[in-house]
Amino acid sequence: MLEMKHSFLDDKEFETMRITRFIKSTVRSADAKGVVVGVSGGIDSAVVATLCERALGPERVTALLLFEDPNRGSADYSDARQLTELLRIRTVDISITPLIETFTRLLKEVSGVDRQLSRLTLGNIKARLRMSILYSFANEQNLLVAGTGDRSESLVGYFTKFGDGAADFFPIGHLYKTEVRRLARSLGVPQSIVEKPSSPNLWQGHKATDELPAEYDILDQILASVFDSNKSLETIEKEVNVSPKTISDVIRLNFKSAHKREMPKMLPRL
Amino acid sequence: MLEMKHSFLDDKEFETMRITRFIKSTVRSADAKGVVVGVSGGIDSAVVATLCERALGPERVTALLLFEDPNRGSADYSDARQLTELLRIRTVDISITPLIETFTRLLKEVSGVDRQLSRLTLGNIKARLRMSILYSFANEQNLLVAGTGDRSESLVGYFTKFGDGAADFFPIGHLYKTEVRRLARSLGVPQSIVEKPSSPNLWQGHKATDELPAEYDILDQILASVFDSNKSLETIEKEVNVSPKTISDVIRLNFKSAHKREMPKMLPRL
Repeated sequence: MLEMKHSFLDDKEFETMRITRFIKSTVRSADAKGVVVGVSGGIDSAVVATLCERALGPERVTALLLFEDPNRGSADYSDARQLTELLRIRTVDISITPLIETFTRLLKEVSGVDRQLSRLTLGNIKARLRMSILYSFANEQNLLVAGTGDRSESLVGYFTKFGDGAADFFPIGHLYKTEVRRLARSLGVPQSIVEKPSSPNLWQGHKATDELPAEYDILDQILASVFDSNKSLETIEKEVNVSPKTISDVIRLNFKSAHKREMPKMLPRL
Repeated sequence: MLEMKHSFLDDKEFETMRITRFIKSTVRSADAKGVVVGVSGGIDSAVVATLCERALGPERVTALLLFEDPNRGSADYSDARQLTELLRIRTVDISITPLIETFTRLLKEVSGVDRQLSRLTLGNIKARLRMSILYSFANEQNLLVAGTGDRSESLVGYFTKFGDGAADFFPIGHLYKTEVRRLARSLGVPQSIVEKPSSPNLWQGHKATDELPAEYDILDQILASVFDSNKSLETIEKEVNVSPKTISDVIRLNFKSAHKREMPKMLPRL
């Protein structure tokens, strides 16, 4: 098995300090009063909210709970609430159901009759509406939007461009999902959050690993081998013990999602 | 007076060809079927829609007219309609009023009583909702979103981050506003569009030059002098015939909006 280099795992306190200083300096240099973060009940947003509270204190962190009505009794919802109560940060709870209904009604009227939006389109709409709500709070209260994306999702493009991919900064954007999970434990994030499987929650029963070529522990080893240490495919195959197809699937996802990690293209001036 | 170097002004046909090839190759390399563009009745979106039609033909360009109800009888609205009819591109007309109302109602409920959103926040919300609608069309029909921003707006940050600033590519992102206007004439964009003053139309009577330190002809000369030719402030003062304050206001706007032109910040891996 490949041994991943996680400098922060040897010294989680150092990594925690590095991130909290990054949060503090980013807020300070923007002349902002604090941050707003969308808390979903998942591991990434729990870690980001916790790190923001450590960096700025509870008064300068606002958590937005942006659930749909049917999910407001879910385990994710109660995990999200439990976390923000634990952190004692201001929590604003908004049902996004009316907004999604209005949005899809407008689209159906123009695209005609009974047309159903695809699951993917609908998922992206939800992510972009959440981003718009986060930014309207940020605008009104002079806050920055702290993004909750991690490096695993980023490298395979597993996020909505201009949705959850849109924020002012990404406190854990440099960490793989498995690293986020280990950091979560050391930060004291509640067990129920640390142990549940990852999901973008864009539809009922949505599990990240249904859509990705491998479980996160394998995926992260492949990603680190390809993008952090530039190993040959044969070496990776042996060390991570995966098929060449899995590796090439991961690389293809990365290639196809390049546009999500770059500024939009434009021509140079001649 | 400063003489601006506009290579394409000597050869508008070359610049038109360069842009249409850029549009074609961007659509082709994304395996997309065409583009969707928000048409506002203003100069930028008129030029982008026209160039997209030239590059791809009318069948592969969809124009979205995303107006609020009170503006659907405006000069901008009829200019937008006239343009898309002239180009014979598919036109989808959606009132964004119900969406804005639902959005602001949700926010008012949580922020309490009679609280009014600031004009700026509301303007940003509109821009982000328009982006979300454009992308839902793009998602459903395998299209790219063609952004309509220009270089003048970009350099002073005169756009909404993740709103009109969010698109898959910017066909005229490298051109100053005054260049776009000249190109519009040569492309045969209707006179009423070419000659009206620029406005982001985020509120009633909204004029770009009420918010910017100078009219676009002056602004563009300052921007080109600072960012394309690196002249000293004294030289610019003399050549453009503006006050040092105007120049420093422009540079300050550029500095303060840097975060809008870059990917969100994250830490490096150590």
